[in-house]
Amino acid sequence: MRSKKLVYEVDNINIDNNDLMVHEAVFHNANGYIGIRSNYEEGYPEGYDSIRGSYINGFYDVADMKQAENLYGLVEDKQTMLNIVDTQSILLIINGQTFSMFEGTVLKSKRWLDMERGITGRHVIWRAPNGNELEIEIRRMTSFYQLSLFTIEYIVKALNFSGSVEFISLHDGGVMNHSNSNDPRIARDSVRYLMPVGAFIQDDDASFLVSRTLKSDLSVCTGVKHVLSKTCTINTQQEGHKVTKNIQTTIAENETISLIKYTVFTDTIRNKDCLKAAKEEMEKALSVSLLTMYHNQKSYLNEYWNNCYLEIDGDDDLTSSVNYNMYQLIQSVGKDEFCNIAAKGLSGEGYEGHYFWDTEMYIQPFFNLTQPSITKNLISFRYRTLKEARKNARILGHSKGVLFPWRTIMGTECSGYFPSGSAGYHINGDIAYSVVAYYLATDDIDFMVEKGAEILFETARLWMDVGTYYNNSFRINCVTGPDEYTCMVNNNYYTNVCAQYNLNWAVKLYYLLKDEDKLSDIEQKLHLTEDEIMEFYHAAKCMYLPYDDDLKINPQDDSFLHKKKWDLDQTPKENFPLLLNYHPLHLYRHQVCKQADTVMAHFIFEDVQSEETIRNSFDYYEKITTHDSSLSTCIFSIVASKLGLNKKAYDYFGNSAKLDLFNTHKNTKDGIHTANMGGTYMAIIYGFAGLRIKENGIHFSPSIPDEWKEYRFKINYEDSQIKVVINHNESKFSLIKGSPQQIHINNKLYELKDNLDVSLK
Amino acid sequence: MRSKKLVYEVDNINIDNNDLMVHEAVFHNANGYIGIRSNYEEGYPEGYDSIRGSYINGFYDVADMKQAENLYGLVEDKQTMLNIVDTQSILLIINGQTFSMFEGTVLKSKRWLDMERGITGRHVIWRAPNGNELEIEIRRMTSFYQLSLFTIEYIVKALNFSGSVEFISLHDGGVMNHSNSNDPRIARDSVRYLMPVGAFIQDDDASFLVSRTLKSDLSVCTGVKHVLSKTCTINTQQEGHKVTKNIQTTIAENETISLIKYTVFTDTIRNKDCLKAAKEEMEKALSVSLLTMYHNQKSYLNEYWNNCYLEIDGDDDLTSSVNYNMYQLIQSVGKDEFCNIAAKGLSGEGYEGHYFWDTEMYIQPFFNLTQPSITKNLISFRYRTLKEARKNARILGHSKGVLFPWRTIMGTECSGYFPSGSAGYHINGDIAYSVVAYYLATDDIDFMVEKGAEILFETARLWMDVGTYYNNSFRINCVTGPDEYTCMVNNNYYTNVCAQYNLNWAVKLYYLLKDEDKLSDIEQKLHLTEDEIMEFYHAAKCMYLPYDDDLKINPQDDSFLHKKKWDLDQTPKENFPLLLNYHPLHLYRHQVCKQADTVMAHFIFEDVQSEETIRNSFDYYEKITTHDSSLSTCIFSIVASKLGLNKKAYDYFGNSAKLDLFNTHKNTKDGIHTANMGGTYMAIIYGFAGLRIKENGIHFSPSIPDEWKEYRFKINYEDSQIKVVINHNESKFSLIKGSPQQIHINNKLYELKDNLDVSLK
Repeated sequence: MRSKKLVYEVDNINIDNNDLMVHEAVFHNANGYIGIRSNYEEGYPEGYDSIRGSYINGFYDVADMKQAENLYGLVEDKQTMLNIVDTQSILLIINGQTFSMFEGTVLKSKRWLDMERGITGRHVIWRAPNGNELEIEIRRMTSFYQLSLFTIEYIVKALNFSGSVEFISLHDGGVMNHSNSNDPRIARDSVRYLMPVGAFIQDDDASFLVSRTLKSDLSVCTGVKHVLSKTCTINTQQEGHKVTKNIQTTIAENETISLIKYTVFTDTIRNKDCLKAAKEEMEKALSVSLLTMYHNQKSYLNEYWNNCYLEIDGDDDLTSSVNYNMYQLIQSVGKDEFCNIAAKGLSGEGYEGHYFWDTEMYIQPFFNLTQPSITKNLISFRYRTLKEARKNARILGHSKGVLFPWRTIMGTECSGYFPSGSAGYHINGDIAYSVVAYYLATDDIDFMVEKGAEILFETARLWMDVGTYYNNSFRINCVTGPDEYTCMVNNNYYTNVCAQYNLNWAVKLYYLLKDEDKLSDIEQKLHLTEDEIMEFYHAAKCMYLPYDDDLKINPQDDSFLHKKKWDLDQTPKENFPLLLNYHPLHLYRHQVCKQADTVMAHFIFEDVQSEETIRNSFDYYEKITTHDSSLSTCIFSIVASKLGLNKKAYDYFGNSAKLDLFNTHKNTKDGIHTANMGGTYMAIIYGFAGLRIKENGIHFSPSIPDEWKEYRFKINYEDSQIKVVINHNESKFSLIKGSPQQIHINNKLYELKDNLDVSLK
Repeated sequence: MRSKKLVYEVDNINIDNNDLMVHEAVFHNANGYIGIRSNYEEGYPEGYDSIRGSYINGFYDVADMKQAENLYGLVEDKQTMLNIVDTQSILLIINGQTFSMFEGTVLKSKRWLDMERGITGRHVIWRAPNGNELEIEIRRMTSFYQLSLFTIEYIVKALNFSGSVEFISLHDGGVMNHSNSNDPRIARDSVRYLMPVGAFIQDDDASFLVSRTLKSDLSVCTGVKHVLSKTCTINTQQEGHKVTKNIQTTIAENETISLIKYTVFTDTIRNKDCLKAAKEEMEKALSVSLLTMYHNQKSYLNEYWNNCYLEIDGDDDLTSSVNYNMYQLIQSVGKDEFCNIAAKGLSGEGYEGHYFWDTEMYIQPFFNLTQPSITKNLISFRYRTLKEARKNARILGHSKGVLFPWRTIMGTECSGYFPSGSAGYHINGDIAYSVVAYYLATDDIDFMVEKGAEILFETARLWMDVGTYYNNSFRINCVTGPDEYTCMVNNNYYTNVCAQYNLNWAVKLYYLLKDEDKLSDIEQKLHLTEDEIMEFYHAAKCMYLPYDDDLKINPQDDSFLHKKKWDLDQTPKENFPLLLNYHPLHLYRHQVCKQADTVMAHFIFEDVQSEETIRNSFDYYEKITTHDSSLSTCIFSIVASKLGLNKKAYDYFGNSAKLDLFNTHKNTKDGIHTANMGGTYMAIIYGFAGLRIKENGIHFSPSIPDEWKEYRFKINYEDSQIKVVINHNESKFSLIKGSPQQIHINNKLYELKDNLDVSLK
């Protein structure tokens, strides 16, 4: 039962050009350090679209991004994630016939992703034009145990013939990034960023290519080594930065032979000498058998699945989707402080490998509950970039504090259009929120001392500089909230409530650390005074949160309700997403939301408003939200759950869960939507199960969709692991490990020692 | 007395690199069709900056203007005024010594502009390194009688030697535009836009070069012909699109010889065959003597100065400046409907030759009073571009009406940064206002039928689409007013009051034309109904005009007063203009104004508010206005005059008048500021003299600065010309020609039949 849901398969005897690129993303292999799109090894005929890419998380070059008018402080270059190399390409030639899905006869063909084993694969039975039939099985892995390593195991069986077998295998460093000048979400121009530095062919036929970026002064090395299961002749050709191996042998009828192609990736962000490191990594890879590696991969994932255990009885499709999403999160998330998790993970070039607030608000909640050490990495990444965030604040005119960039790889701002980029100041509050969320989930005060506090204090400072008192309330003008269909507004509810939380927590943490005598270093480092803390306190207390007395809702911002309502019913279907079909001014002038904004604030800061306000607001915004952003439906699902709107909650959840596997946003080709994947998880745990972790402890308000029989999951909380089983009759809570916990269930306090059953009725 | 004030001279024995480019603009020659910067004929040594340019009004190519993020509808190319040719270059070689201001000894040197004769000149006495002394006089003219023609008369006198004289004279079509990647007001990239099509050398030594633009499908021809005052040998070399003439003769001691270089410009906007046209223009130029041409030029200007007669007793410097400004306006303004008047006229490449609202709000008021046929041309230009304005409105999401572009040459939007570009919807109201202003000044109802009404109705329609009713008032959201230090706001006072006027006048004109039975054609053409007119009426009546009860001022927009006030006193002087030193978000978040905004509205729509509100608003905005725009001080001067703040009015006026001659904005090198030039005139006539032309007739509220003894001017009003003399005792009004007029002086009605004296006391 379990493993079935952890395998995702598609038959693809009939190849649809539209699906090819989607599958390249959906079946990509990644481990948080490297990501390889699942391109066909043998390539495609002309006329078929493909983005052939291999990426390293955090490895970038600097690309020009000239402004049409270069006003002061506008960003004119950006980091861009690079396509590193092509080591996927392998041609198979049998008796002079080159294998192709587009020639001869494909008798069987499927692609699969095994999430329990951490392997993707292709299985093909093919009849060549000359009648030779062969069975091909190709397995690919990016190792979680050895992050530098990508393997392709290419297995061929001769079904009805014998003869010659030839593999032509590439190691090509002369690759470029994908571009599309018509989509604002993709890089406009194709530029060759990686310049060859050296190519080294070893006696044992391993090849190593070193390249350097044009501007960022980073180098990367890729090493490739082939191992064939039987005697062969290998012929190596090198042309510039391209190494071609010609591997020849023979095959008998019913014989199976296999080629293993090892690729290692190293870079100078993590290694001083990337060539040396690559040689070492290759040696390490070759020191154990592939079988052992497969085994290691499986045991890594075994632990992973155990940590993020989640099963749903009654809806296999959804369970598969949810598992798929969780798998993509561990594939995508960076495993060190040099990188983070990109909007598209390592599956494609959409948003150019940039990191957004998605990390903090959509993905960290998942890792907080399942593997908090990863959250710690992600926060450490932000901590490492405080210096750049400080500079960014100065560019934006702020004399103190830090302002984290709206999108970045190495810490500087990469957004070209600042009204829906740099103006998204809420990212500061989001990062502060995530620091608190990590602390509340783990009680890890040492990490607060080490890194968290500095982030909280410095972000709090920025609010003091950006905000201003007016009519005795503290106001934040000219910022953009999560909903980018309205930009540069005053008192965006989401932003203000985030800032309030940020300021309040800076105050709390100050006294918390003071009480524990852990404050003095940071106080000195930041020249922090209690007077300043009092200013934080006062501003938080006076924070202006817009409220409309007539509608009894929180307006999205000061003037949102004054605008014309967009009539979504009258908008032709082909005009969505609106951003691709309407001028920003037209969008800004209307009441129309790209995504949850105030509704999102009502989820994460639910205690700030009455349930009536939350309900009214949900009803109001639901009618004018397009969900053109993939960050939206999961939040609507959660708030619908909170409001007891179970049917809606389930529908929104389904929409969210299926986004990539069903390509509902029509852009999965450019990569998976990692934030939505975290959001799907949240829609179950925070939505249906009603989890909240607050200062006074952990809370549940269990519910279950009609369509399900039961669902079960485990979460970590502080030093404990808790298993939760929810069905239509009752909720069961078990303490799997760690200390007993006080838990609130439907606002009633219980002591969880080992097991606890609570009736839902 | 008069002619002295019409000559502007500078001594330039000591050449300052900083002044060179300023003088190139200040002394440029133009006639509304062509403009030639006053570069030294002999060029400059390396290390000296120069922008060597010759331009045609309305002649453009299309330049790429890629957006950093290409959101829907953003402008990605723009028109740019082209540098056409270099025909200024003439080297003078005496006995083998090449004349240069940077070698040998410059004994005397001055540059001059004679605004009575319409000629600029240089006068130099130079001692060559070999001791030869010569006197050089160079006169340049762009003819107002023959718009295609530019002449250089180069006169050399041998003071203490005899020997050989050689002129090396260029006709170079291989020129490029100037670029500066650090100034948002200048084109970023240097591109070769003009491609050679053909070069034709005639038997009589005239050369004609034809070039075509890369993208706009326009061609231009320039013809050059040399005439020497004595026998010479002429040698012609042609290298691609560059023709070099070598003209050799001899000179005796005390002999004077002169070279006349004729250049004609023709283009395919105005001519089908520009080569043929250029040959005809050259023939025409050669058919009369240069002396006759100088005479024609002077008589053209004689009439001009008579029309815009303005004399100030007691302040010669200011009189010179004002005359200079008026001269630049006639030099800069287009003389046909294919062009308009650029922000920098034809004197440089700042703002790339684009036309802005400057035309309607700062320049047309001058021509309305002095030469209304020019206003008619300018409005006709807008009328010609209604089709593009209609398309522009659709791109911005409006289902009806027209939206004129914020900046343009041929009618499509050229602003790269839409928040302070396309969002400046007030340009629609400005154009509508200017149509009404022309009508009120001329009573030209036929022109309203022909063109004015369509503009008024179509602009009115746009307001109906952009605006929305809220709380029973009509609101205009998400637009940018004149002050670009606050962008995309709701209910910008200036914009709303403009829109109200636009709507009201659409209604008035509808009934006016209806009463005169002149409506039906236009009603049919525009599918206009009385119902729609009633909607205009209702919206105008309900127009929301922000007012603050506490401050008793009109807030610039809905949220302007909620923001932090910028502390101008604490801002370092080197940080102005602020736009070059602060991020737009930082500016937008503060109460700080680049220029008159509400104050401007209070000038042009003074009857909408009480004098108290106008006074309070003036006081309020004065403290937070930087006047970083050259459009600002003249307006402050006018409103100060209105409020009886005579000292302030005078100071602001002086600031405005001297802008270019004293390079107070430090960017005159890129061209003169034509709007400010019109503004200077307005500061006298609308400011000190208090002129207003309203529906109930013409008004004066005369005042006079303490520094002046008397000032005198003439204006046209309907079919009359009126002379006004104002001194500290009285104002005298004389009807010079036309019908008697009712005039309001200090709100008292008088009948002007021939002369009228009104005591000022």
